[in-house]
Amino acid sequence: MRRVQLGVEYDGSNFAGLQVQAKGERTVQGVLEAALAKIPGAVPKITAAGRTDAGVHALEMSLHYDTEDTIPVERVPLALNALLPPDVRVRWARPRPMDFDARKSARWRAYRYRLLLRPEPSALLSRYALWVPHRLDLDALREGLGHFLGEHDFAAFANQEARPTRRRILYAVLRLEGEEAWIELVGTGFVRGQVRVMVGTLLEVAQKKRPPEDIPRLLAGKNRAEAGPTAPPQGLYFVAAGYRPWPAGR
Amino acid sequence: MRRVQLGVEYDGSNFAGLQVQAKGERTVQGVLEAALAKIPGAVPKITAAGRTDAGVHALEMSLHYDTEDTIPVERVPLALNALLPPDVRVRWARPRPMDFDARKSARWRAYRYRLLLRPEPSALLSRYALWVPHRLDLDALREGLGHFLGEHDFAAFANQEARPTRRRILYAVLRLEGEEAWIELVGTGFVRGQVRVMVGTLLEVAQKKRPPEDIPRLLAGKNRAEAGPTAPPQGLYFVAAGYRPWPAGR
Repeated sequence: MRRVQLGVEYDGSNFAGLQVQAKGERTVQGVLEAALAKIPGAVPKITAAGRTDAGVHALEMSLHYDTEDTIPVERVPLALNALLPPDVRVRWARPRPMDFDARKSARWRAYRYRLLLRPEPSALLSRYALWVPHRLDLDALREGLGHFLGEHDFAAFANQEARPTRRRILYAVLRLEGEEAWIELVGTGFVRGQVRVMVGTLLEVAQKKRPPEDIPRLLAGKNRAEAGPTAPPQGLYFVAAGYRPWPAGR
Repeated sequence: MRRVQLGVEYDGSNFAGLQVQAKGERTVQGVLEAALAKIPGAVPKITAAGRTDAGVHALEMSLHYDTEDTIPVERVPLALNALLPPDVRVRWARPRPMDFDARKSARWRAYRYRLLLRPEPSALLSRYALWVPHRLDLDALREGLGHFLGEHDFAAFANQEARPTRRRILYAVLRLEGEEAWIELVGTGFVRGQVRVMVGTLLEVAQKKRPPEDIPRLLAGKNRAEAGPTAPPQGLYFVAAGYRPWPAGR
């Protein structure tokens, strides 16, 4: 048995999220495991670096599976892409030691949230960015974002079922890209709902509904009810996960 | 009766093109005229600056319609967007004199063709850019592109039914955008199929299947059979059309 890591891009628009649900809805995990089931020797079971909700996209979701197939690892993307629907594409495959774990070995995860800042809605981006027609104070948003840096208890920004809630944000920046603003976040890990509640709260800051200084107050208070709403899924992208260099990469 | 010009963005993925077809397929014109038919006083008939094929997108298609409704022109985008499907969005509306014609008055039209240059396919961009996995000689492409500038007979680059075929290219440039290369073209007008055959031929130049000097030879020869293939629709965008300044704008 050998372990293979994949970098997978997907369009979350027509998925009920990454993870297999109880009800048999269409999930990224479901279509990936269905593709693996068609490769003799492969174990049709994936472990991913992160979870994404329905409508959330991934540029390079990191995951692993085990297999006894004889496909050379550099041919794996081609083999799997022939078995996958077009809204899921394997970008690369790498051999990994059996104690590598795409979830547990991940040292950091990066997310991006795309805001479309213009008065009129977009036909092309309605599933790929959050349309924000009102004027935003981007300096206030930047200031709020800075307060998230470092290690905090994110209980106020987590869906209730998530425990424990202590996490470290390594990098947080606002990038302007044409008509868009991208909130880029890198952390050692994120609790469920965290990115979307962080963005929902930052949007309230950017709309002057609350001051940037609310962020440290919310972190200290640990009360989800006091933070902002969960931002819609369509602007969110899982960008990548990071690991220690291979062969040490585990 | 008054005339209104619209700037319309659409995602061409689920349309059989802009123009109403014989068979009653889903077209951009069809959904726009169906929306206008719901506005009392509006004539449910549009005239557009250009035609786009099935799968081709528009950032700002320019079109006009006539109406006796009483909606203030600045409220027209909101009113129409409430009646349109999400893959068609009105970006702006402007009052125009009755002798303004979105097609006949257009002084220039701009198109963009997006090439995704990377070894692996994309899940998010499969309908929004042409994936080119092989290595391209972008300098050769640029050189070929330069040969299109100015006034030429584009018979070799036109679908057979298109006559006459004399057109002027005002601007042509290759822009690099991250993993993508964008071919930007502005011309006084384009004959049917012209942009896609130009791009198909330029891709042969960029793949060293023919030299850049083939472009002037093809223009002089006027033989469609000697030019390259029609590039796929999904990378193509109608960017905008230009008019003389209003109120002279007609």
